Amino acid sequence: MLGQMQYLPLTLSSILEHVEASSPDVPIWSRQAPPKLGEQGPIHRQTWRDTGQRARRLAQALVDLGIGESDRVASIAWNTHRHLELYYAATGIGAVLHTINPRLSIDHLQFMINQADDRIVFFDGTFSGLIAMLKPMCPRVEYWFQMSNAPQDPMWTEPGYEDLLDGAAPIAAWPSLDEQAAAILCYTSGTTGNPKGVLYSHRALVLEAMVAVGPAVLSISRDDTVAPIVPMFHVNAWSLPFAAAISGASLALPGASLSGDALFDFFEETKTTLSAGVPTVWQALLGHLRKTGTKFTTMKRTIIGGSAVSEAMIRAFRTDYGVEVMHGWGMTETSPLGTISALTPSEIASLDADDAVRRLKQQGRAPFGVSLKVTDSGGAQSSGGENIVGSLKVRGHWVIDRHFGADEPATRDGWFDTGDIASIGPDSCMTITDRDKDLIKSGGEWISSVHLEDIAKRHPDVVDAAAIAVPHPKWDERPLLVCVCAGGKDTNSEEIRALFSQSVPSWQVPDLTFVDQLPIGATGKVLKNELRQRFADFHASTGS
Amino acid sequence: MLGQMQYLPLTLSSILEHVEASSPDVPIWSRQAPPKLGEQGPIHRQTWRDTGQRARRLAQALVDLGIGESDRVASIAWNTHRHLELYYAATGIGAVLHTINPRLSIDHLQFMINQADDRIVFFDGTFSGLIAMLKPMCPRVEYWFQMSNAPQDPMWTEPGYEDLLDGAAPIAAWPSLDEQAAAILCYTSGTTGNPKGVLYSHRALVLEAMVAVGPAVLSISRDDTVAPIVPMFHVNAWSLPFAAAISGASLALPGASLSGDALFDFFEETKTTLSAGVPTVWQALLGHLRKTGTKFTTMKRTIIGGSAVSEAMIRAFRTDYGVEVMHGWGMTETSPLGTISALTPSEIASLDADDAVRRLKQQGRAPFGVSLKVTDSGGAQSSGGENIVGSLKVRGHWVIDRHFGADEPATRDGWFDTGDIASIGPDSCMTITDRDKDLIKSGGEWISSVHLEDIAKRHPDVVDAAAIAVPHPKWDERPLLVCVCAGGKDTNSEEIRALFSQSVPSWQVPDLTFVDQLPIGATGKVLKNELRQRFADFHASTGS
Ligand SMILES: Nc1ncnc2c1ncn2[C@@H]1O[C@H](COP(=O)(O)O)[C@@H](O)[C@H]1O
Repeated sequence: MLGQMQYLPLTLSSILEHVEASSPDVPIWSRQAPPKLGEQGPIHRQTWRDTGQRARRLAQALVDLGIGESDRVASIAWNTHRHLELYYAATGIGAVLHTINPRLSIDHLQFMINQADDRIVFFDGTFSGLIAMLKPMCPRVEYWFQMSNAPQDPMWTEPGYEDLLDGAAPIAAWPSLDEQAAAILCYTSGTTGNPKGVLYSHRALVLEAMVAVGPAVLSISRDDTVAPIVPMFHVNAWSLPFAAAISGASLALPGASLSGDALFDFFEETKTTLSAGVPTVWQALLGHLRKTGTKFTTMKRTIIGGSAVSEAMIRAFRTDYGVEVMHGWGMTETSPLGTISALTPSEIASLDADDAVRRLKQQGRAPFGVSLKVTDSGGAQSSGGENIVGSLKVRGHWVIDRHFGADEPATRDGWFDTGDIASIGPDSCMTITDRDKDLIKSGGEWISSVHLEDIAKRHPDVVDAAAIAVPHPKWDERPLLVCVCAGGKDTNSEEIRALFSQSVPSWQVPDLTFVDQLPIGATGKVLKNELRQRFADFHASTGS
Repeated sequence: MLGQMQYLPLTLSSILEHVEASSPDVPIWSRQAPPKLGEQGPIHRQTWRDTGQRARRLAQALVDLGIGESDRVASIAWNTHRHLELYYAATGIGAVLHTINPRLSIDHLQFMINQADDRIVFFDGTFSGLIAMLKPMCPRVEYWFQMSNAPQDPMWTEPGYEDLLDGAAPIAAWPSLDEQAAAILCYTSGTTGNPKGVLYSHRALVLEAMVAVGPAVLSISRDDTVAPIVPMFHVNAWSLPFAAAISGASLALPGASLSGDALFDFFEETKTTLSAGVPTVWQALLGHLRKTGTKFTTMKRTIIGGSAVSEAMIRAFRTDYGVEVMHGWGMTETSPLGTISALTPSEIASLDADDAVRRLKQQGRAPFGVSLKVTDSGGAQSSGGENIVGSLKVRGHWVIDRHFGADEPATRDGWFDTGDIASIGPDSCMTITDRDKDLIKSGGEWISSVHLEDIAKRHPDVVDAAAIAVPHPKWDERPLLVCVCAGGKDTNSEEIRALFSQSVPSWQVPDLTFVDQLPIGATGKVLKNELRQRFADFHASTGS
């Protein structure tokens, strides 16, 4: 016997309709392209009502171009109001928005565009050089549209984004779609081989956003102005363009200006209360704040994710700047909301600073909709409580079933193996110990690279650090810590070494080396493979 | 092209599994039946883990009795841990839980049990007299199980609830169900004719609970101990048994003791932070607080719904007791979350007391998942902004499609007509002006009964008030205000009349009459039909 309630599909267009009806006047802020190189672009303001209207015009323009259900429309673009409109317009008519990470190699870019069979590519002016290279490699793309009014490059004779909008009336009504239809395609930047696509359904994205706004998760309300610094080409800016609409929050989209000082100005001008990004971005921002001695006046909370966050960063935000930290773990394959470590108001009031940091260092709890388990090589498994460190597996409404174009499912017995090594505590909080492939195995014993990096980052001069395995004749592998350091390397190396002797058994103390900067990949993560190649011949002096 | 994410059905058992994994040790409090009449029963404590285990045993017991998918299992029970277990056990195996309101007439009770084809009825000991009457009228019911260990009435030879649990091992795994399968059946207490059943699907209830916990809605987190005073036989206790589990909150279930003093003790002992109920319940509680001069020590927020809440009540909670008010509107047909008027933290900090009351008096905004519109008799319609008062229509994931057993859909063009008269402001906040049938039409002009009642309740001695239409030779109808009054009727009637002359045009000033108490229906609402009959011959002196 079926229930007798209304059935409405869970689609992204229903989120837009909701925010248009319930919060039409809430502003969307968007940093524009600068008039001249090196300057700051002006901040554009429109409302959710405008966004809805403009998305409807764009949708009609796409229909007029012959785009229909399941057709792929790509974007190579920063976080702007136009990209937001494209999010809702393309998915609203049942097309699949392919969000492309411009930081990938040209080989990978052409591979993705061709594998996805993109019919249109929308791109920001900053990428016109890249597009010029891609165009001949992607002959099946029918239209390349620049996402600004005034194409700076005269080679673009096609109409621009605003021309498309000007030429179309708003679509009368969003079509009714299968809620399991594909909405967004996003590729993971694999460290080896070609990128792999993840094809998000409307249902998955809507359910994720519904959960993301919850008080035990990101707690987003009408009070918030949410600034996703994480790019909209990186797992849908962590679902914030949808979560903000569900809760009637304001969005602040920073455009291409992601330096510490540009971000600080942007947060202040838009009165941002909640921001979200990877540790590398926050590192730059914190550096700017320290240098200038400035403080946030409206920022209350920040979401840090994508890589493990250091204790030092948590303390800096909380203690020095009064900004509460939420620490999220997730993957492209988990849309990305996997777990979140966030304190409730009563925990904020009752936990002392050290306990709070300890809690926030963990990757946290899975919200409703995601299940976790860890399994070790002996076959033992735990969803919490048992003291097992093992492979982290996930299941849930917004977890991948199969990669785009893959013959084999991405799951086994319904679970997706994340490639992370983790444990789940008796309080159901999950802690990542390492990436599978980043673990260091010395004399048959595992050493956690994350743990070593953490210890190094406690030193005030250490700006960044990556621990990798280097081959060793006796121990198979030994840990090498590659450090970016503000002070002189000689005094620091002694102090850093001292930190390690206090914190880990002597066989885990790594060798140290100093570099000017770490190689950072397209999604802001350290490219450990590159470091491993570069230091393949390093002779470890420890562990002898 | 479909997305390639995992598909898991949205079922109530997945909510239970989530809370067992993420918040196993969070307590469920439950007031037991009293050892002797007139005494207070002890408060039982178990955890969500226990609740899960016991629900699994009960599920197996039901399976052993031959209960399968779509079979109806009824409950006539208070809010207790056992009722909570039954909620999850029956729905978990795909059976339909029919929650029965024991306050309905015996005719209606037998009608519902027979129409629903209930195979089992679970009942609380307090209802054994009622059950004795019902049993011969409902021959198709196979089992009548008392929901306590020690049956007080020796006529019950069947095993009790705890015997069932003792005799069954926990079910190995919850079966996978169609998310649109029926989960709970609840009848509306229609003021005329037989009650009508509403058949909630798993999907509707899960989506509703996901939204209910949100910060712009009820904002329920791990910090909360939630005490639903609204009965579990009245629209699933407003979804709180599910919402609490989704957010890992504690539940406090007050059993049969709903008097002001019993509730106050219960809230204090369980450290309740959030409670929910109809205005009549809060009236009694506030009376107790005033009489004894006591104050809450842990209660932070209260949800008031089911009838319009008066300004006086909002002020009492907020100003006298420091308890923030959330005002909800909904119906059995909307599961019931329709709209909510709740202030965000920044609004609480910035609005002055009068503005806050004005906002909270409104029925509020529809959350994501519910759409509203009002249409007037001229065909004009508004979803917000336009100045239209008309019939309120709703649409959404947890809004009814068709009544149980009905031939005709309950909707027209996809919208359900609520029978309420409302307007939607430019801020998207909805205000109920009246029930369709409660409007008073005097000389062709409408008078809002809600408005008249509100004015009367501003007088400190007015305990309750109901405005009804009485027939009038000249004006068709005239308003009569039926008052329950603490002080002497003579002085009060002058003062109340004065309130009206200040507040409404003279043709809207009602006649006054005083009674000891108003007739209250099964869901705590004033039975206006009964008042209309009783005062059918009243000769209005106003409006002449
Ligand atoms: N907050 C409220 N303010 C005014 N009327 C309400 C409110 N909540 C519920 N109602 C009334 O109760 C009806 C639903 O009754 P029921 O289905 O028995 O829950 C609604 O259609 C309204 O007329």
